[in-house]
Amino acid sequence: MKEIIAIIRMNKMQKTKNALAGIGYPSMTANRVMGRGRQKGLYLSQSEINPEKAEWKDRKMKYIPKRMVSVVVSGEGKNEVVETIMKVNRTGKIGDGKIFICPVEEAVRIRTDERDDKALQ
Amino acid sequence: MKEIIAIIRMNKMQKTKNALAGIGYPSMTANRVMGRGRQKGLYLSQSEINPEKAEWKDRKMKYIPKRMVSVVVSGEGKNEVVETIMKVNRTGKIGDGKIFICPVEEAVRIRTDERDDKALQ
Amino acid sequence: MKEIIAIIRMNKMQKTKNALAGIGYPSMTANRVMGRGRQKGLYLSQSEINPEKAEWKDRKMKYIPKRMVSVVVSGEGKNEVVETIMKVNRTGKIGDGKIFICPVEEAVRIRTDERDDKALQ
Repeated sequence: MKEIIAIIRMNKMQKTKNALAGIGYPSMTANRVMGRGRQKGLYLSQSEINPEKAEWKDRKMKYIPKRMVSVVVSGEGKNEVVETIMKVNRTGKIGDGKIFICPVEEAVRIRTDERDDKALQ
Repeated sequence: MKEIIAIIRMNKMQKTKNALAGIGYPSMTANRVMGRGRQKGLYLSQSEINPEKAEWKDRKMKYIPKRMVSVVVSGEGKNEVVETIMKVNRTGKIGDGKIFICPVEEAVRIRTDERDDKALQ
Repeated sequence: MKEIIAIIRMNKMQKTKNALAGIGYPSMTANRVMGRGRQKGLYLSQSEINPEKAEWKDRKMKYIPKRMVSVVVSGEGKNEVVETIMKVNRTGKIGDGKIFICPVEEAVRIRTDERDDKALQ
């Protein structure tokens, strides 16, 4: 099983949930986070690479409110979920977000004690 | 080491924390999330499996405020923590939540630089 | 790739972000969590190890608002990021927090479809 974690724009949340439900993945967890992508780092010039001195400059490097969506899928579902998230979230502009895929070793549905793939179905 | 992530009902949070502290796991991180289990997907009929069209219907598929609890344990502690979370959270009604178990490769206690199992003790 | 998850003091957030940006890791996700370290468990005496009875006593075991910072790095970056987080966050007092390192199998930049290390650069 894999956990697919997507950090996306706030205004893409509803569409992302709908698209995932539409392909059979209604089950998910969502969360507010603050995110910053690599491009923000360009505000730092070489002379500021010293962590001690970077502080005042960094105030300009804003964190953007983002949504984090987490879906746990069995191995086979992974590509379809990733493709769907990408399709809905790709605007081509900076800030579209990222997807991370992490291993999940066990899953349990608390109500029934179903395990692993059965807990996800 | 394993991270045990439980998505549970809001009103089970205090009892869950107490039960985990009671068996020797007071150390944890808690978080507010919005969650939706698989059963909510049943609102979607087959004709709505198209992500583009699913949107209006999906408005009825509510996300429920949940609590996420994360406990990092050494390998041996895993089963006891999972059992305890299940015991406290199982009401038998839909919405009892899920538990996911993920690998953790390293842990560090910042204050002392203790590593791995020692950082958890 | 690794996800480095740090649970730190609220008032260390800005310095931690600056220090990570300063060493070339501006890209991260931040989150508010409630955290409790092991030391809080000491409030429980042996006679209270029964989860059912622990409840009233546990009310004294406070959760502290913390910040969670997550940075995904390629394998080589890991030690530098961990060292930097430790340097900024170690006060020597209880509550300095913890760092956990978890495996990340894939990363995708949604805008460009770049994968893995390229999605992190």
